[in-house]
Amino acid sequence: MGGSLAMALRPFIPHLTIIDRDPETRAACVAIADAVTDNFADGVREATLVILAVPARAIVTLLQELPTMRPDGCAVMDIGSTKTDICAAMATLPPQFDSIGGHPMCGKEISGFAAADADLYRGQTFVLCSHARTTAVLRETAVNLIHHIGANPIHLPPATHDQLVATISHMPYLASATLMRTAAALGDERAWPVSASGFRDTSRIAGSDPQMMLDILMTNKTAVLAQLAKFQELLTAVSTHLQNDDESALRDWLTHAQSEHQHYKKVKTGSAIGE
Amino acid sequence: MGGSLAMALRPFIPHLTIIDRDPETRAACVAIADAVTDNFADGVREATLVILAVPARAIVTLLQELPTMRPDGCAVMDIGSTKTDICAAMATLPPQFDSIGGHPMCGKEISGFAAADADLYRGQTFVLCSHARTTAVLRETAVNLIHHIGANPIHLPPATHDQLVATISHMPYLASATLMRTAAALGDERAWPVSASGFRDTSRIAGSDPQMMLDILMTNKTAVLAQLAKFQELLTAVSTHLQNDDESALRDWLTHAQSEHQHYKKVKTGSAIGE
Repeated sequence: MGGSLAMALRPFIPHLTIIDRDPETRAACVAIADAVTDNFADGVREATLVILAVPARAIVTLLQELPTMRPDGCAVMDIGSTKTDICAAMATLPPQFDSIGGHPMCGKEISGFAAADADLYRGQTFVLCSHARTTAVLRETAVNLIHHIGANPIHLPPATHDQLVATISHMPYLASATLMRTAAALGDERAWPVSASGFRDTSRIAGSDPQMMLDILMTNKTAVLAQLAKFQELLTAVSTHLQNDDESALRDWLTHAQSEHQHYKKVKTGSAIGE
Repeated sequence: MGGSLAMALRPFIPHLTIIDRDPETRAACVAIADAVTDNFADGVREATLVILAVPARAIVTLLQELPTMRPDGCAVMDIGSTKTDICAAMATLPPQFDSIGGHPMCGKEISGFAAADADLYRGQTFVLCSHARTTAVLRETAVNLIHHIGANPIHLPPATHDQLVATISHMPYLASATLMRTAAALGDERAWPVSASGFRDTSRIAGSDPQMMLDILMTNKTAVLAQLAKFQELLTAVSTHLQNDDESALRDWLTHAQSEHQHYKKVKTGSAIGE
């Protein structure tokens, strides 16, 4: 995600420094960056804007280290997957820092700089989360940056963002992973040749990186648990209708799901065309 | 599904009769069929092989009517989504009938003859379910038919088929529909522009036809309820790990899901290449 953002922003940045721990990534970054380093303090020393593109909890740690590395302050943004903890950490930075949370709503199953793509963000939604001390100047800088990479900015409070992503990203991940584990628990290898596109699509994100997902779930625990409770309530309802041979209630439940899917597709397609 | 099968089989059939209730479908079928009718009795009167391509419970009804329509018997196959009830009905046909259950593991979100595609079955798995009275001759005919349309036959007992599709098709549908309903229950329209490819893919089959899915669930109730129970057990486990901040158990659970997904992808890709 960070590599794609660096590539997409490159034409608009006079001086680009990339900080990465991995020697292979640093070697690859030389092609697009003015400077490459594995040292956070060196990398941020002269930056006007620092963009943190690591897992959510690592972002919080870096925000805590930043005032020591950069005592004179700078602008800070991030592209972490959850926003409440990160924006809370941003709000406690010393006054010489100006900060805003960000989350581009796209991704790749393959990570690493080799998979970086300057067009990754084109046409995608990019959430911005201001906190009480985010300035209008930084909001404008962030919106311009998002327009540069071809994405569509949406402003949301951090808690709203986290509730929405719990619903449309983290709960879907848990359902996908649970489907995969349920199918594997059958212990019948004939399941795989018999499976088709329905299983392929619903199980796809079960293949996500466990460490990244662990980080996301741990930093969005409250919202994810609320979605899990709602999901379990709805699943129990449909299960009970089937158990009771209640065709009328079952048909009604399934028809609601189809109607809601049609509404989502209509709104989603509309927003992609409109923006 | 029936339209695609008729188109795919057309080059190999000397005389093709299509039976359909819908006048528009019948009008479209004239282009490929030697005869088109809305009358089941007329359609099956001189057939060597009757292929039933309607929802599972309607197939059972047609199988019950068939001996009256066609007293001298014929060969019968179906392409219904569940197999236990259908094969049980086939096994009670009079001795002048030879019958075999079938289920091609592919489909389209769009149904109707306008969406028919002669290449729909190419490279896909096609399950055959024999019952105690299925002859070796009909098994061979069915295998040849499957090879003609470019699909890969797999022989499974009806109960095994139904357990496998409960796991890799019906439970994924219920999880997908529950995800859709959970997201809609949030009542926040901002969810849709914020959603990305993860939600798109995991919610896709929530848009399936409710009547078709109702039919499938009602004819595969026992196997689906067993998969629902296993799914709920695994979902409760991951939910408890998160609730308890048990990072080690949570990481372990998520890592298993990723490994199992990698195994499925490896086997699935291998079988597609190998066959």
